[in-house]
Parts: sequence; structure tokens; C-alpha cells
Amino acid sequence: MKLSARNAFHGKIEQVHNGATTTIVKVDIGNGLTVTSSITNESADELDLKPGDAVTAIIKSSDVIIGK
Amino acid sequence: MKLSARNAFHGKIEQVHNGATTTIVKVDIGNGLTVTSSITNESADELDLKPGDAVTAIIKSSDVIIGK
Amino acid sequence: MKLSARNAFHGKIEQVHNGATTTIVKVDIGNGLTVTSSITNESADELDLKPGDAVTAIIKSSDVIIGK
Amino acid sequence: MKLSARNAFHGKIEQVHNGATTTIVKVDIGNGLTVTSSITNESADELDLKPGDAVTAIIKSSDVIIGK
Amino acid sequence: MKLSARNAFHGKIEQVHNGATTTIVKVDIGNGLTVTSSITNESADELDLKPGDAVTAIIKSSDVIIGK
Amino acid sequence: MKLSARNAFHGKIEQVHNGATTTIVKVDIGNGLTVTSSITNESADELDLKPGDAVTAIIKSSDVIIGK
Repeated sequence: MKLSARNAFHGKIEQVHNGATTTIVKVDIGNGLTVTSSITNESADELDLKPGDAVTAIIKSSDVIIGK
Repeated sequence: MKLSARNAFHGKIEQVHNGATTTIVKVDIGNGLTVTSSITNESADELDLKPGDAVTAIIKSSDVIIGK
Repeated sequence: MKLSARNAFHGKIEQVHNGATTTIVKVDIGNGLTVTSSITNESADELDLKPGDAVTAIIKSSDVIIGK
Repeated sequence: MKLSARNAFHGKIEQVHNGATTTIVKVDIGNGLTVTSSITNESADELDLKPGDAVTAIIKSSDVIIGK
Repeated sequence: MKLSARNAFHGKIEQVHNGATTTIVKVDIGNGLTVTSSITNESADELDLKPGDAVTAIIKSSDVIIGK
Repeated sequence: MKLSARNAFHGKIEQVHNGATTTIVKVDIGNGLTVTSSITNESADELDLKPGDAVTAIIKSSDVIIGK
């Protein structure tokens, strides 16, 4: 499946931090860059996310703010 | 000003494409990665965005989906 | 690829309406329900979206408001 | 009040799961489809959300990704 | 209908600017504050939005970034 | 740094409520209006958010729904 979301960054999970209902996932996308994502625990469990996993961080272009 | 948004990627504008009310901005963040952002024309004008400008692409962690 | 986004509704495209930079896509997900999506023209072109196509409408749970 | 958000799916709450600050709500919208929403505990309390409640899941079209 | 979205600001429309598929709406919420919203033309038409209309600008708390 | 996000409301923090991974921040923007934001604990810690702090609540126009 191809997605309409314009931004898809491939990387490796650095850290998975589970809260009560929300999980914070940090993905190393190379070049010293990390993407932080906040998802449901349910998603983190279903995808069995753990450090070292190869994942993709996906972001819709309407969610990107530009600062200058 | 420091932002709560966890993701801030520094780069250079590659392309600015103006529509009727919405502008698409592409930012080269290095390492062969491009961030695409969709903002209002008003913002693009006010920030005077043009190719080559040094900018930051900012994304809240709740807007990042993980694919595995 | 499996996505962390909790909501994925399969359906058929009813309508694709291109604007200057933004395209509106309507997806019939059955049972009389339609999902409306607003994406970039670039995405619509790249995915070659047209009426009748089988697609999936994907929504992160943090983007769903509850009314009662 | 009528909303600009293009997507409003009527259904019944299946499950309410409270976390420390965030609540996950699952809404059965018929035809075997469930919408998952992540809201603040404060909202869940104020709307007194509980299984069986008739609710509407509301989604802005700019938050819908298309996969094909 | 009561909404889970934590932010609802009542005001009067100052300006409606239609694009090809996207409309920009500016709402005066008093005290010198204006809220800018980007919605589909379809929504703007269906709600018959025009300057002077009493409206509410609604924002989910997960879409609010804090700067300090 | 100037942001493309059209909405930036200056105010004072009224309340900071930490959850397991998510923090709810309430900002008094004057005129009896409060903005509620949901951010990561990590952000709340890094910005050292506490009642009385002068902050800005920032919202992209594509995240604003209009009700009429």
C-alpha cells in the first residue's frame, strides 16, 4: 500500500516508553536526527515495537509547521 | 522561544509552490531527506519563503504515525 | 507494512476534486458512509487516484473528536 | 451547531479506557466498523462517556490519509 | 451536542477567502484576538459562512503546541 | 524564529497536570479564555512548565474546525 502522506522517514527504534494509555516512540532516522512519535499503547503492542526495530515515521504535510 | 513540539528539522527550502490559498513547501533536511509541508499562502508570504532559505520543519509527536 | 494509526476504513473512491494545490477525495466505506479526505495534488497524482479505485482511509486516533 | 469537519460517524461506545491523563474511546459505527479516539480524561469525564452511549466520531478531512 | 475538544472560542467571522478547494476563515474572538482556520470550500458553502456570522472555533488539545 | 502557524495566543499557565507520558497544560489567554494543550511529559519537563509562566499557545489553521 502506498500512502498519500508526503513524509515517510525510515529508521530504527531507539526507545519505547509506555505510559498508561500512550506510548512515546523515538526513531533514529540517521544523520543524527530522531523522530519522536506519540501513539496508543494498543498500537505499540499490536506492532510489537521494541528498540532496534526497522520502522517508518509517517507525517502528513498538513501537520508540518515551517519556522524561519 | 522553545517549542513543546518534539520534532524540529533544520534545512533549506528546495521548492515553494503557491496554490489559490495553500502553499506546498519542500525542505531539504540533509542526508537525501525532504520534508513536505502544506501551509496557507498567507504564512508563505508573511515568512517570505523562497528556495534556499534556511528554515525549520516542526512537527508535534502526536502527528507522527509509525509503520512497521 | 502495518500502521500504528488505529483507524483504517476500506472503500472505493466516489469522487476526486483537484484544486490548485489541494485535492478532495471522497471514499465510500459502505453502509451509506463516506469519508472525505483533503490531500496534496502531488499525492493524488502519485497514487493516480480516480473514482472506483479501492483505497483505505487512515486516521490517527488523536485526530478523532467525540460528540455526545 | 453544524460543524465544518466533513466526517461525522454516529455510533455507540463499545469501550472507554482511562489512562493517567488520556482516555481511549472505541465507537461501533455499524457494519463491523469501529472508530478509536484518544481524548483527555477531562473530556471523557465532562461528557460522562460510558459503554452504550450514542455518540458521534468527528474527523476533519485534513486529518485523513489515503492508502492505495 | 457537546464535544470532547477542549477548546471552543466564540466569535464573529471577519473574513472568508475562498480558494480552489480550500477556504481560509478568520474569526474575531474578542480582546484583539483572531483565530484563522483552513477548511474545505464544501464546508464553507454548506455552513454558508460569511463575514459577521457568529461562529465557534474548535480545537482539540492535542493540536496545541506550547512555546516558552 | 517566526512560525507559519497562523494562531499564537500569549498567556500565563494556569495549571500543569502530569500523567504517565502525557501532560495537560492550561493557559489563560485573557478575556476569560483558557487554551488547553496536551503535550508529552518530556516537553513539559524540558520547557520547565509551571503555573504562572508566560507562554504562547500555537495552533496551525488546518487544525481549527468551525461550528455555526
